[in-house]
Amino acid sequence: MTTSVTISEVGPRDGLQSVDRVMATEAKKAWIKALAEAGVSEIEVGSFVPPKLLPQMADTAEIVAFAKTIPGLDVVALVPNLKGAERAIACGVDKMSIPFSMSETHSINNVRKDHPAMIAEIKAIADLVAQQPEGQRPYFEVGLSTAFGCTIEGPVPDDQIVRLAEAAMEAGVAEVGLSDTTGYANPAQVTRLVRKVKAAIGSDKLNTLHLHNTRGLGLANVMAGLAEGISTFDSSLGGLGGCPFAPGASGNIVTEDLVFMLEAMGIDTGIDLTKLLKVRDIVAEALPGEPLYGFTPDAGLPLGFKGIAA
Amino acid sequence: MTTSVTISEVGPRDGLQSVDRVMATEAKKAWIKALAEAGVSEIEVGSFVPPKLLPQMADTAEIVAFAKTIPGLDVVALVPNLKGAERAIACGVDKMSIPFSMSETHSINNVRKDHPAMIAEIKAIADLVAQQPEGQRPYFEVGLSTAFGCTIEGPVPDDQIVRLAEAAMEAGVAEVGLSDTTGYANPAQVTRLVRKVKAAIGSDKLNTLHLHNTRGLGLANVMAGLAEGISTFDSSLGGLGGCPFAPGASGNIVTEDLVFMLEAMGIDTGIDLTKLLKVRDIVAEALPGEPLYGFTPDAGLPLGFKGIAA
Repeated sequence: MTTSVTISEVGPRDGLQSVDRVMATEAKKAWIKALAEAGVSEIEVGSFVPPKLLPQMADTAEIVAFAKTIPGLDVVALVPNLKGAERAIACGVDKMSIPFSMSETHSINNVRKDHPAMIAEIKAIADLVAQQPEGQRPYFEVGLSTAFGCTIEGPVPDDQIVRLAEAAMEAGVAEVGLSDTTGYANPAQVTRLVRKVKAAIGSDKLNTLHLHNTRGLGLANVMAGLAEGISTFDSSLGGLGGCPFAPGASGNIVTEDLVFMLEAMGIDTGIDLTKLLKVRDIVAEALPGEPLYGFTPDAGLPLGFKGIAA
Repeated sequence: MTTSVTISEVGPRDGLQSVDRVMATEAKKAWIKALAEAGVSEIEVGSFVPPKLLPQMADTAEIVAFAKTIPGLDVVALVPNLKGAERAIACGVDKMSIPFSMSETHSINNVRKDHPAMIAEIKAIADLVAQQPEGQRPYFEVGLSTAFGCTIEGPVPDDQIVRLAEAAMEAGVAEVGLSDTTGYANPAQVTRLVRKVKAAIGSDKLNTLHLHNTRGLGLANVMAGLAEGISTFDSSLGGLGGCPFAPGASGNIVTEDLVFMLEAMGIDTGIDLTKLLKVRDIVAEALPGEPLYGFTPDAGLPLGFKGIAA
């Protein structure tokens, strides 16, 4: 099994866009800075969507510019389409990610594009990236969303996901990730789908899982991904965001619990868990009353626990 | 990986002894009956401890007698010592389990017995079992508690656990289980410790894990146990009990989430999840206001989900 893992913190994007209130730009900056100081090396800092649709993300350009000043931090932004990608490239993001829903019904409902239209959009973005001068091309990734099932269509056939992953690669993306948008995934499914997609597009072209904890299986699914060589896991501080379906049910897997599990297992995350736990205070202060999840923050660290760094 | 798993429901014992209120005997019976009707094949129904210490368990003899009338149900009781074992045998339990704390400090604090005194007690019970007429000997198991760490001593050395597991087997028990009493376990530790204990006492002598979800790793630890051939997992409906350390942090792993995970993976639990989810109503009605945990109950089953039985 792997000895180190990258945790990609998605709270400032995925988390905040699920919160109705708009977090103050300065609070976002403080949060991102504190995450980086705790050792988080990759952060999805915002989304280049129209501010009318998501006012929470209106300051993404400023946030990207700030995050870029933090040495060693990989700055990621979500882009919904070519227009968003143009803005992301202009801001100099290190990495951009577009969600591509494996459920065509979900794709049409969500972004009013069927699968061929999404592939065309992805190709247009990949072409735009390729046209950039060397050294200014962001890493362009597709997140295969609803890959583990859809709340409208139900199960999505594995073959469909494999075919669409291949189509995305052919359109020119650097790699694909698998997203459990609906919290439907189970460990056996993670194992099976990761193997199938890797077999189709190359084992180095699927490195990231975006898992939810909607039904409590988030960390069990991480275990299945680790065994298949997945090296990057998305998560959010306090489990913020990820469209929780019900009170008490967090959406995104909780960064604090994920870091605790990995470090306790001897897998290096580069993150200082004690420092990470303190970062919650920033979010709690900026969004008073917003529920923050996490078992490890509630229970505290085991007596005698030492992270990798310690 | 295994194709079927036994879930040992510990709510009526481990759950109820953590609740200050005493659940009415009739409610306990209704709960146990409904669990069995949902397909639960093994239930820890009570504990033969002095009623002065745990009034919640005062009706254990009556509960055992009732549970014994349910066809096909394995009726388990906890016994703290020889006296409890005498009562359990008199009641005709199918299986009895004694907790044996791997942390000697915890053992002394909890039951005022050091390790040699506990081994002597276990031997006295094993001898008593052996003296029973054939067909009336309950299956006698030791639960190696605090095996993954202790809140007083911190980490417990693996070698100590292996040595005490061997001593318990020599004292005459049928098998040992490993208990994460403190919620300290991580998947790598589960793998390592299960392997070491199996290597020492025989791979068929360790079949049960009692895991907690205190730090959110319960189901990830189940995954590690499954990979090592563990075939029985303790859990409690609604995560009741298991000494939760903090609000929101369940102690025992939640039966509903465990069943969802296993059935979704194609591992047969024999349990009908839809029926199981309805059993919560009985507990909620008998213990109004008592927090019941579980992600799957909050989020609901995925669209198109079919259990093994369906």
